[in-house]
Amino acid sequence: MLSGKSKIIAHLGYPTESFKAPLIYNPWFDSKGIDLVVVPLGVKAEDYVPFFERLVRLSNLHGALITMPHKVTTVALLDEASTAVKIGGSCNAVLVRDGRIIGDMFDGEGFTRGIERKGFRIAGSRCLVLGCGGVGSAIAASLAAKGAGTLVLADTSAALARALAARITEHYPKVETRVGSADPAGYDLVVNATPLGMKADDPIPFDVSRIAPSTFVGEVVMKQEFTPLLAAARERGCRFQIGTDMLFEQLPAYLEFFGYPGVTVDELRAVAKITY
Amino acid sequence: MLSGKSKIIAHLGYPTESFKAPLIYNPWFDSKGIDLVVVPLGVKAEDYVPFFERLVRLSNLHGALITMPHKVTTVALLDEASTAVKIGGSCNAVLVRDGRIIGDMFDGEGFTRGIERKGFRIAGSRCLVLGCGGVGSAIAASLAAKGAGTLVLADTSAALARALAARITEHYPKVETRVGSADPAGYDLVVNATPLGMKADDPIPFDVSRIAPSTFVGEVVMKQEFTPLLAAARERGCRFQIGTDMLFEQLPAYLEFFGYPGVTVDELRAVAKITY
Repeated sequence: MLSGKSKIIAHLGYPTESFKAPLIYNPWFDSKGIDLVVVPLGVKAEDYVPFFERLVRLSNLHGALITMPHKVTTVALLDEASTAVKIGGSCNAVLVRDGRIIGDMFDGEGFTRGIERKGFRIAGSRCLVLGCGGVGSAIAASLAAKGAGTLVLADTSAALARALAARITEHYPKVETRVGSADPAGYDLVVNATPLGMKADDPIPFDVSRIAPSTFVGEVVMKQEFTPLLAAARERGCRFQIGTDMLFEQLPAYLEFFGYPGVTVDELRAVAKITY
Repeated sequence: MLSGKSKIIAHLGYPTESFKAPLIYNPWFDSKGIDLVVVPLGVKAEDYVPFFERLVRLSNLHGALITMPHKVTTVALLDEASTAVKIGGSCNAVLVRDGRIIGDMFDGEGFTRGIERKGFRIAGSRCLVLGCGGVGSAIAASLAAKGAGTLVLADTSAALARALAARITEHYPKVETRVGSADPAGYDLVVNATPLGMKADDPIPFDVSRIAPSTFVGEVVMKQEFTPLLAAARERGCRFQIGTDMLFEQLPAYLEFFGYPGVTVDELRAVAKITY
């Protein structure tokens, strides 16, 4: 129940119609008696910087959730950026504390929490991340943060992969990070962080015949629950994670960032006004 | 229930803690299944103009409620201003339609709707308005719009009263509008639109002994239900209107402006999550 005493978390993006966060967080805040409300605000790219600069000065703003198309732009507007933001070059959560704008990025955290909950042990593992854009960068950063042994990055742009490898090595020198090919043989984890699978006639991004059944396969595409890659991986007996799990698993991380630690995904799913 | 499809009415002011509008409008919108939510946003004076200019460009903004300290500043930011805004020089409601920013002011409308509901007939009446600031200007403009016969304006600043009289005459030449004294003898309606009555030791703004029992007395001060002026007027047998009635009576006018005509004050009171 909004009142003049409520604090606001602005949900910034455009268009807003498909936003899910208000339907997940608001019922949870309400159930806990927390006077905090996620409010969708449809900001177009050309208005974003000047709007953001004033928004963060509102007396009742707690923070912001950032989505398309503002995740990269936001990085330059922060006073403090997490390592995930620095490596990935994008930001999806902002907290305003004592006038300082603090940014973090939870796509990678959501992905890695999800595979850990499914029993995958990241520490010391051999990981291949295919796709070094926003989400691939975030996942690679989080795998490195959690102690991956070997981290191989592949992208159709070798320059993009090299730049990401350099940023990860700068922050996590103990992880053996290098640029490699899309061949998935010999890994404990392979991740599709490319858009392949969003369109019906997309090719499968890996040669699935070369994935060992013991390899865990992670997907970020969420247009369909079982992408052709996941269907093939399941067929081979691989463990796997579907695209939307990355989203749900990052919800507790967001809430921790906003000051509410210890919430479980299941608790959020139970009160959320949406089903997946 | 806020979602990505919701439209927003921003409630702009600072500080926000005492805002009542979300507690009145949101339960009513909810009860009608209207996906529109009043969201308090605490904007400080120094941030207002650049924030407002970007806010009105949000894709899901329906309009705004404007309160202290932004009512005067807003006038310069409008594409279209109502006559009440032009005369009073302040704006408390903004609608964004086809990219145009349309402003109106309902303090005067609230006051006059209230006295009409109490049986006072404005057309042809002799009215004295004491205090020619924001609220006095709005009330005087609304009395003129509803066909007052004589409108006398009094203020400790004669220049302020003269300027208001000139603006009213420009828009309503048929109303006999002039500057006069605070002597309340000989009027059908006398209005206190000064701040006198907000502090405990304030003098009564009129010489009550000169108010005829047939005169209707209107008050804008809402710190207490019965100001010394109203207590004295009631003692003399005058009909009267308390300060907060002006607020409640303008709610249906706001809703009409935002596209929802025909709502009654009683209907709003019934669903509002506050009592007065």
